[in-house]
Amino acid sequence: MKEIKAIWSENKKIFIIDQSQLPEKIEVVELHNFRETVEAIKTMKLRGAGTVGVAAGFAMAQAFSECRSNNELLKARQIIEQSRPTAQNLFYATKYVYEKAIQSDFPKDVAWNVATEILQRDIANSHLMGKLGARFIRKGMGILTHCNAGKLAIAGLGSALAPIYTAHNRGLTIFVYVDETRPLFQGSRLTAFELASAGIPHAIIADNAAGYFMETGRIHAAFVGADRIARNGDVANKVGTYEKAVVAKEHNIPFYVVAPTSTIDIETPTGMDIPIEKRDEKEILQFHGLQIANQESQAFNPAFDITPARFVTRIITEKGIITPSVDSLADFMRDHGTI
Amino acid sequence: MKEIKAIWSENKKIFIIDQSQLPEKIEVVELHNFRETVEAIKTMKLRGAGTVGVAAGFAMAQAFSECRSNNELLKARQIIEQSRPTAQNLFYATKYVYEKAIQSDFPKDVAWNVATEILQRDIANSHLMGKLGARFIRKGMGILTHCNAGKLAIAGLGSALAPIYTAHNRGLTIFVYVDETRPLFQGSRLTAFELASAGIPHAIIADNAAGYFMETGRIHAAFVGADRIARNGDVANKVGTYEKAVVAKEHNIPFYVVAPTSTIDIETPTGMDIPIEKRDEKEILQFHGLQIANQESQAFNPAFDITPARFVTRIITEKGIITPSVDSLADFMRDHGTI
Repeated sequence: MKEIKAIWSENKKIFIIDQSQLPEKIEVVELHNFRETVEAIKTMKLRGAGTVGVAAGFAMAQAFSECRSNNELLKARQIIEQSRPTAQNLFYATKYVYEKAIQSDFPKDVAWNVATEILQRDIANSHLMGKLGARFIRKGMGILTHCNAGKLAIAGLGSALAPIYTAHNRGLTIFVYVDETRPLFQGSRLTAFELASAGIPHAIIADNAAGYFMETGRIHAAFVGADRIARNGDVANKVGTYEKAVVAKEHNIPFYVVAPTSTIDIETPTGMDIPIEKRDEKEILQFHGLQIANQESQAFNPAFDITPARFVTRIITEKGIITPSVDSLADFMRDHGTI
Repeated sequence: MKEIKAIWSENKKIFIIDQSQLPEKIEVVELHNFRETVEAIKTMKLRGAGTVGVAAGFAMAQAFSECRSNNELLKARQIIEQSRPTAQNLFYATKYVYEKAIQSDFPKDVAWNVATEILQRDIANSHLMGKLGARFIRKGMGILTHCNAGKLAIAGLGSALAPIYTAHNRGLTIFVYVDETRPLFQGSRLTAFELASAGIPHAIIADNAAGYFMETGRIHAAFVGADRIARNGDVANKVGTYEKAVVAKEHNIPFYVVAPTSTIDIETPTGMDIPIEKRDEKEILQFHGLQIANQESQAFNPAFDITPARFVTRIITEKGIITPSVDSLADFMRDHGTI
């Protein structure tokens, strides 16, 4: 595809690229009602903090088209919010669409407009984050990224990949180390696909190998996204982020979290208060239905982990840059009118 | 199989279990000559520091049976030693068999006897390491292990798994977190198979998740093996070991390296002097011939990394316990008559 996009709407119809089939197959799927959208979120046909948020917003709009009473609407909202527990953007989107629409005289139209507005805002925000983050990228840098926080995860240029795209578009030569990101391989399947499509030099590495490339001096900065950021600056992101951040700190490698302010959850005091989604053990034990692991063994599969604020060099948002060791996130959000 | 063993000899014939087919299939393969043994090492039909050493010893014995001149023998030794560059036991075994046999009046018989002696010594050593290491295990502990350093890796009880087997046999209830160990899944395939066979409670986790289980207080100790230990105590082991060690230190979780003294390489000053094997990128890009990763992307695949001595709480050998932050490895080896 020429332009990589994860989700869009046309005439109150929702379309996605089924990310579980990427990069082998680019299949456009229509999500006909809010339950299908919820199912697509759960099964990770669409994934990524921003994309999940946009999908939740559209699901809420679909619910406004489908439901006959406020009770039904509230039930729908609950079902949408239970699809994935960690991503903050999801709760942000359902709340935003619901509250704007319910207060209006034309709730259906408003719900769809507001959901579309979330998508458009994500695009604008990603370009802003790209600009702000690119200032930390120098020519010749080796950059680590984990999971997929690109165009498939947040419309526009993504979050973590936005500064990388921006630097590349400015002509800076960089090299990206792509953690393959077990168990679902979002790195080797999605991020590698995005970078190859953009012509950005890169190599996939086993998640285990990031430390090796840090200790041998090949990685000079790390950029990751976030699924939720607590008030104290602790970051929930794809499992493995924490290990990379600890090892990066050991080597004085700056560790950047790139995320729109809609990811910041001022209501949650610390990372330890963020619910961590446990996913099906089959994601670890099997690959495409093929048993990988020992048959009699179980697996534990937390989808996220918590990176304490002290390991995060900067949080790069669309509204500015936060240094979590110094700045108060609550003050930042208040100063920028987001709470 | 009742008793798990990786390699053995009968009447100057070498047999292995093809570990690349475990745990689905337990296939005994005969290695007919030293070149077949080298090929089995390279393709990882047999792997693990001790097993590779024993195989190299047997390959050297096979060469004594096959070669007609010392020149041919030296060429064979070189071919064996080039099979895998990182494992110290490999070089230890070829040297030991070659030197003992070449000095003897009955070189063929001596070569086979000495090679068998290495295997028998590994078995004895693993029981000693198990005993010494088990003193660090308490009831109820959650224990992390990486890769496979069990019976398939070192005859007897293995290295890292020896204390775990010993503690379990003494009736201590423990729970083992098994890193799946990308790219070749030695954890989810081999270690999980061993632990399930022994009835030791365990769960497989994505390599990315070790940090999560440390930060949530579920892991109380880590036991890993080693492929080579430098004079200053730096440890080369399966890629990913370094990341786990750094995160363990962050949580004051003791990190134990279990390895026979034959793994200690006094000639190599530091870990940075240990050659790190780069393996085929296909191990990352494909699974059983099936493309996993984005088609147009390359992968980098270092098989090992270096864990600096300061991250290693103890090195547990068959001759005693080393505290690398305090003890001199050269002194230890001299005191125990190993150099």
